[in-house]
Amino acid sequence: MAKLTKTNYKYYKYKKKGKSRGSRAASEPAVVPYKVIPLGGMKEIGKNCTLIECQNEILIIDCGFAFPEYEMFGIDVVIPDFTYLKENMEKVKGVIITHGHEDHIGGIPYLIRDINVPVYASPLAMGLIDHKLEEHGLSCERHVIRAGDVFKVGSFKVEAIQTNHSIADSIAFSIKFAGGHIVHTGDFKIDYSPLDGKVIDLNRFSQLGDEGVDLLLCDSTNVLRDGYTPSEAVVRKSIDDIFNNTDRRIIIATFSSNVHRIRYFIEASMSHHRRIAVSGRSMENVLTLARELGYLKGIPDSVFVKISEIKNIPDKDLTIITTGSQGEPMSALTRMAYDNHKSVKLKKNDVVVFSSSPIPGNEKVVSQVVNQLYEKQVNVVLATAMDVHVSGHASSEELKLIHTLLRPKFFLPAHGEFRHLVEHSRLAQSLGQPSNHIFVLGNGDALEIQGRKAKIIREFTSGDDVMVDGYGVGDVGSAVLKDRKNLSQSGLITVAVALDSVTGSLMARPELRTTGFVYVQEHQDLLDEAMNIVYNSIGRCTGNGSFDEAALNKAIKSDMKSFIYRKTKRNPVIIPIILYV
Amino acid sequence: MAKLTKTNYKYYKYKKKGKSRGSRAASEPAVVPYKVIPLGGMKEIGKNCTLIECQNEILIIDCGFAFPEYEMFGIDVVIPDFTYLKENMEKVKGVIITHGHEDHIGGIPYLIRDINVPVYASPLAMGLIDHKLEEHGLSCERHVIRAGDVFKVGSFKVEAIQTNHSIADSIAFSIKFAGGHIVHTGDFKIDYSPLDGKVIDLNRFSQLGDEGVDLLLCDSTNVLRDGYTPSEAVVRKSIDDIFNNTDRRIIIATFSSNVHRIRYFIEASMSHHRRIAVSGRSMENVLTLARELGYLKGIPDSVFVKISEIKNIPDKDLTIITTGSQGEPMSALTRMAYDNHKSVKLKKNDVVVFSSSPIPGNEKVVSQVVNQLYEKQVNVVLATAMDVHVSGHASSEELKLIHTLLRPKFFLPAHGEFRHLVEHSRLAQSLGQPSNHIFVLGNGDALEIQGRKAKIIREFTSGDDVMVDGYGVGDVGSAVLKDRKNLSQSGLITVAVALDSVTGSLMARPELRTTGFVYVQEHQDLLDEAMNIVYNSIGRCTGNGSFDEAALNKAIKSDMKSFIYRKTKRNPVIIPIILYV
Repeated sequence: MAKLTKTNYKYYKYKKKGKSRGSRAASEPAVVPYKVIPLGGMKEIGKNCTLIECQNEILIIDCGFAFPEYEMFGIDVVIPDFTYLKENMEKVKGVIITHGHEDHIGGIPYLIRDINVPVYASPLAMGLIDHKLEEHGLSCERHVIRAGDVFKVGSFKVEAIQTNHSIADSIAFSIKFAGGHIVHTGDFKIDYSPLDGKVIDLNRFSQLGDEGVDLLLCDSTNVLRDGYTPSEAVVRKSIDDIFNNTDRRIIIATFSSNVHRIRYFIEASMSHHRRIAVSGRSMENVLTLARELGYLKGIPDSVFVKISEIKNIPDKDLTIITTGSQGEPMSALTRMAYDNHKSVKLKKNDVVVFSSSPIPGNEKVVSQVVNQLYEKQVNVVLATAMDVHVSGHASSEELKLIHTLLRPKFFLPAHGEFRHLVEHSRLAQSLGQPSNHIFVLGNGDALEIQGRKAKIIREFTSGDDVMVDGYGVGDVGSAVLKDRKNLSQSGLITVAVALDSVTGSLMARPELRTTGFVYVQEHQDLLDEAMNIVYNSIGRCTGNGSFDEAALNKAIKSDMKSFIYRKTKRNPVIIPIILYV
Repeated sequence: MAKLTKTNYKYYKYKKKGKSRGSRAASEPAVVPYKVIPLGGMKEIGKNCTLIECQNEILIIDCGFAFPEYEMFGIDVVIPDFTYLKENMEKVKGVIITHGHEDHIGGIPYLIRDINVPVYASPLAMGLIDHKLEEHGLSCERHVIRAGDVFKVGSFKVEAIQTNHSIADSIAFSIKFAGGHIVHTGDFKIDYSPLDGKVIDLNRFSQLGDEGVDLLLCDSTNVLRDGYTPSEAVVRKSIDDIFNNTDRRIIIATFSSNVHRIRYFIEASMSHHRRIAVSGRSMENVLTLARELGYLKGIPDSVFVKISEIKNIPDKDLTIITTGSQGEPMSALTRMAYDNHKSVKLKKNDVVVFSSSPIPGNEKVVSQVVNQLYEKQVNVVLATAMDVHVSGHASSEELKLIHTLLRPKFFLPAHGEFRHLVEHSRLAQSLGQPSNHIFVLGNGDALEIQGRKAKIIREFTSGDDVMVDGYGVGDVGSAVLKDRKNLSQSGLITVAVALDSVTGSLMARPELRTTGFVYVQEHQDLLDEAMNIVYNSIGRCTGNGSFDEAALNKAIKSDMKSFIYRKTKRNPVIIPIILYV
């Protein structure tokens, strides 16, 4: 319940005297209006996608997907609704990507198949995007960018700024254009000792603040955490401790995209004369890519061993790096845990390290895999017991630093559930930013800014979830999901009836079929009674040479429904089918 | 990775010289064999139920249910398999209950309807059991017991010992019988300043240790937590802070069974001249029961106000105590959050306190409710930010104290997932207990003990999950669940065909019906093509005056399946139905 008190607000104004928010050295603020429109990533963690629209040009920042929520049965991924972009196709100048995580790049194939737009991304992100597009049989105009690069996308002058995150090559953007100057942090933390030595470019953030920032969009993920997020160097120390204290096989599960951390696992293995095997498709793909891109420079190919050839290597000389840190059912680690892995049979006292935390919602499945690993008598090392994982997102003190360096006129908390956005807005207020300069948006809302004026246009365009199920994009909506939910709860009963098309008299014994309802063999009595109910419904609605189809449908449905509920207290879906012979 | 080193084991033996484990003052250990058989509660947190069988008598300790696991679609609750008890009905002497939580009493109605057995429980637990049995239209022989009571159940001499837990009247059991002496802790923590002043009876535990304990069954829930679980007094302080610092309406969600904590909410309200309204069925029921049983002695009825009559009470004078701390969809708090509560309309700056932690698996739904509360602009207080909740289970140092006081000969870690049981076993080893005196069981395994000898009989009886769905107990098994899962993923397509019963020729246009598959209106093309597939399948298998029913069924299924997968990359359930006219 952080609150802005009068006292600290005054103090802030006093302290910052002469350095007003969003100041623009001696010049008046630009008066060209523009809009910022998040299509995804607001009030959720996932499918980040934000548009900046100014003078008939649209710049897209990130284009991710989200994993399906609880009760989105059968859905593979969720993407933003691109309708607004499709309707304004000619305005779209490009997509700039902050980093290569799925919630920032996963939506690109679904965008590219509709709108052929250039993509600007750092080497690793671009490699991951290439792989994705290839899988979809697509391609696009690609521009590899690096921290420090300044480039134009349409009339937008974009600068890529080094940040730190749990993936290599993460960047923030400074975007200058006729409307003003926007800084978008992307996902970031402040790491003074990152594994690749590339510390977030705080000096550049400071200079940008001096130049004047009109609007800041900033990562809100860890705003609820006090203090600072620990450095990746902490993980290095824990990994060293593990390698120094065991002569058993070490199996490490982590996110495949955390290339620097994986490189460290490899280096630690090498200094303990261990060879490295890699398991899991995404881990293999990313490592191949990482080698191509030079992230594994200095590491000889000879330290790697194929997962199928680990048999001959003594336990003390082997490290396995694997996918499955989120308990994914088909992942390599899960298969190891359940004895379904072709090449890895777990041994008593193997050391299995989860270099990860469960993503919210995955706690239970991760827990199941951990229990299964205990059954295998391996030593499980979790981040709750040892610092084998650190977050990639800035905690509250780091956020305060970025706000203080940039001093934006307006602030748009981004990348967070609603509570994160609200708490981030409170954090900004605690630093002196007036609450009417802070905007909490939903997906599809627009923030319209013109010079010193800003206002929200609610529901400017669709911010809906678009669900992808197989090849279908958007063909599964809430009605279909509701059917799937109902089917999942008590299954279904199909009642098929053949009637004479003229007289309406019953032409065959009706068929009654259940799926997902009860063990039929053991409940023949119930089904026999149900058949009588069907005959009754038919009797009521047909005969005398006339019949009412709608009435019969309704009667079968409601008679069966109430009979079944009375007998079983369940509500299976009832599907009547009438054939006319 | 706590390990028993030779050093600390020797130290332990030295220290305890003359106080051997499970010693029995000067007498030889009993040699009557007995079995301990957990039917539930091992390798899981839920449906606790353990049998002690000796000389043709069975004593049951607790009889709970579990909430359904992920992917147990449509299942209401999961109970232990009582087959072994039904087969040995005449041996069963009674059920003794450690406390009134659902995972310890929820299975009782399902047991009682098959086996009429006396139940022994403390006042609150018995009140909750009575309520349960009444709902099921059942009754049983009931014995209200209190800490300190010693009573016989068959030949078992049972003593109830005061413990602390997150529900009033929690007790441990000392059970003496021909086979030996067992102590079962139930769920417990060590609280030196519990709200009711009744500290766990450590002296009695110490005396029992001196008398000699053959087997200890001990709560393992929090074995992974270092140190001590904080006292309930910590919550009192936080609640005071909240009441002292707001003049807004206070809404507190907590577990209805935590009667002492709820009493404190009431007392705090009274000392701030607030009236109390209660919302949520289980909260109302438990409070009615608590008043009947005297837990609210000294609290005048006049401090309560009906939830439907809160309109006239100023915000600063009102506290609402509610269910919904786990984000349950139909609970009072969730209804408030989504504006569906009949009497409570949330106001900006209302203070909403979650005096709870999400039970594993509930993280995501709780999070959704919290975000929704932020949308209502209320101030949300979570246990992650303020000490408004403490666990009811002993952390590792508390467990060490109990082990040290009791010094059992054999140890059976109980009430935990597999990793908890294993880590609890390691904890016991770290205190000097030999590993071959510690047994990790699964449900349905038996531990057979005779004097100084003990062995595990794996899969002695069924330890299966029995699923309850509506009135059905055990009629939904893995095959039905698999159907439900398949239905939930891509829905279904029903194909109904009417054939001439003699010639096999098609008598009507086939009917094709989809549910939970796609929006039919928008995909008529696909369904038209699918209809052609049906005609093809029929054409292949019928005609020429003969037909093969099995072949037609199979053809419709597999032709449709591969057509749909090719077109949509989905796998709906295909249900062919053939009617003979």
